[in-house]
Amino acid sequence: SGLVLVKNPHLDSMEEDILYHLDLGAKTHNLPAMFGDIKFVCVGGSPNRMRAFAQFMQRELGLAGAGDDVTDICAGSDRYAMYRAGPVLSISHGMGIPSISIMLHELIKLLHHAKCWDVTIIRIGTSGGLGIEAGSVVFSDMAVDSSFQPRFEQVVLDDVVVRSTKLDKDLAEELLACSREIPDFPTFIGHTMCTYDFYEGQGRLDGALCSFSSEKKLEYLRRAYDAGVRNIEMESTAFAALCGLCGLKGECCRFHLP
Amino acid sequence: SGLVLVKNPHLDSMEEDILYHLDLGAKTHNLPAMFGDIKFVCVGGSPNRMRAFAQFMQRELGLAGAGDDVTDICAGSDRYAMYRAGPVLSISHGMGIPSISIMLHELIKLLHHAKCWDVTIIRIGTSGGLGIEAGSVVFSDMAVDSSFQPRFEQVVLDDVVVRSTKLDKDLAEELLACSREIPDFPTFIGHTMCTYDFYEGQGRLDGALCSFSSEKKLEYLRRAYDAGVRNIEMESTAFAALCGLCGLKGECCRFHLP
Repeated sequence: SGLVLVKNPHLDSMEEDILYHLDLGAKTHNLPAMFGDIKFVCVGGSPNRMRAFAQFMQRELGLAGAGDDVTDICAGSDRYAMYRAGPVLSISHGMGIPSISIMLHELIKLLHHAKCWDVTIIRIGTSGGLGIEAGSVVFSDMAVDSSFQPRFEQVVLDDVVVRSTKLDKDLAEELLACSREIPDFPTFIGHTMCTYDFYEGQGRLDGALCSFSSEKKLEYLRRAYDAGVRNIEMESTAFAALCGLCGLKGECCRFHLP
Repeated sequence: SGLVLVKNPHLDSMEEDILYHLDLGAKTHNLPAMFGDIKFVCVGGSPNRMRAFAQFMQRELGLAGAGDDVTDICAGSDRYAMYRAGPVLSISHGMGIPSISIMLHELIKLLHHAKCWDVTIIRIGTSGGLGIEAGSVVFSDMAVDSSFQPRFEQVVLDDVVVRSTKLDKDLAEELLACSREIPDFPTFIGHTMCTYDFYEGQGRLDGALCSFSSEKKLEYLRRAYDAGVRNIEMESTAFAALCGLCGLKGECCRFHLP
């Protein structure tokens, strides 16, 4: 039916569902009226960038009030920022899997309570590129972990559950086709590697701790490239796993910083 | 010598050290002049709370300008917020291990470049309490993972390195002694459990996904309590591991939300 799904039998019997980190609630807010027509959700790490993106979308869609400031729907919480531009929601998620997971759990419940359907979610932002030109954009066909495997290991209580991290291939192809109409930046489809750490986990030589050589780093990144990885970031495996389980058509498209 | 240490042989040969997520740099800023006299660093998840804490410290220390607004030292970045009040630095770290790790790598390099010594770092904020009264404060003697073990598994490239998560016991005792002078809230020393996930990882029944029963949740939390866990949050193992390795006297003290 294209509806956004929750997979939690406890929710039905709860008296109130508070989306604590979004400063919203199923009783305190009329979520269907506020969000029922949402078709696209774009998420990225930085609150300022997601505000700028909402303003950009307002102009692109020729909406009334375009050019004005946009209102942070989650202003009562300083955990995340949320803006809307017509059918597009623009939300920040902070950095790393734990941070994006909290946001996604509450976003998925929001879209479920609002009875949204056929929702596409796209993760936008920057990432480290691998063997590609700076300024390139990578559309992910799959998120992989630090061993280049398409899996997300979720700890549930003290069990480990392994989840698939495949992204929507048709959506990636569609975005790639759209990007061909815009000149001047190279675009690719490739795997996205997701790590828990920015410094030691991604082979950076400039953290407070570094125990490996430049050669060891390059050897690791070469193996990642050979496994099909074209960019590296810190959220995609959890994003792919959660969106896939809850009926959201999901895609990661990331700009490789110069 | 009490100096804050970096353990990275590459740093000496780098031309410039940019603390990217703090919007600071060793060449662009005079770090010894800005931070050389820092003796305490207090960190917590939320930027608004860390601003309020800096203002509180200004008043408590009777500093000139107390009551005025405080300036965000990292205003050029919207990843973290940083304020100072005399010898106290107050910094936000977002939510989860990956987010606090990026901040700590760059903070440790900052304190190293600034030639700071005898620095105490305290993680403050809220956490979920376990078998203790709401409104209690827990001082951690040790951070444990979701299997109640005092270890932090850090992925370095694709190797897993296990690090100790012991916190400074003397500091915990000292803070506990101080807290005895303030009436009206109970304080404890106990272990702090750190998870990668807020919903499925901490036994919450109200996430978008939940595959376990209320009984299974309670049985897990009971085992955690029996292992000495008194509160649960999402950053302490990485905090303890990084601070311990770099010569920072570290402690987590968390308020259990009502």
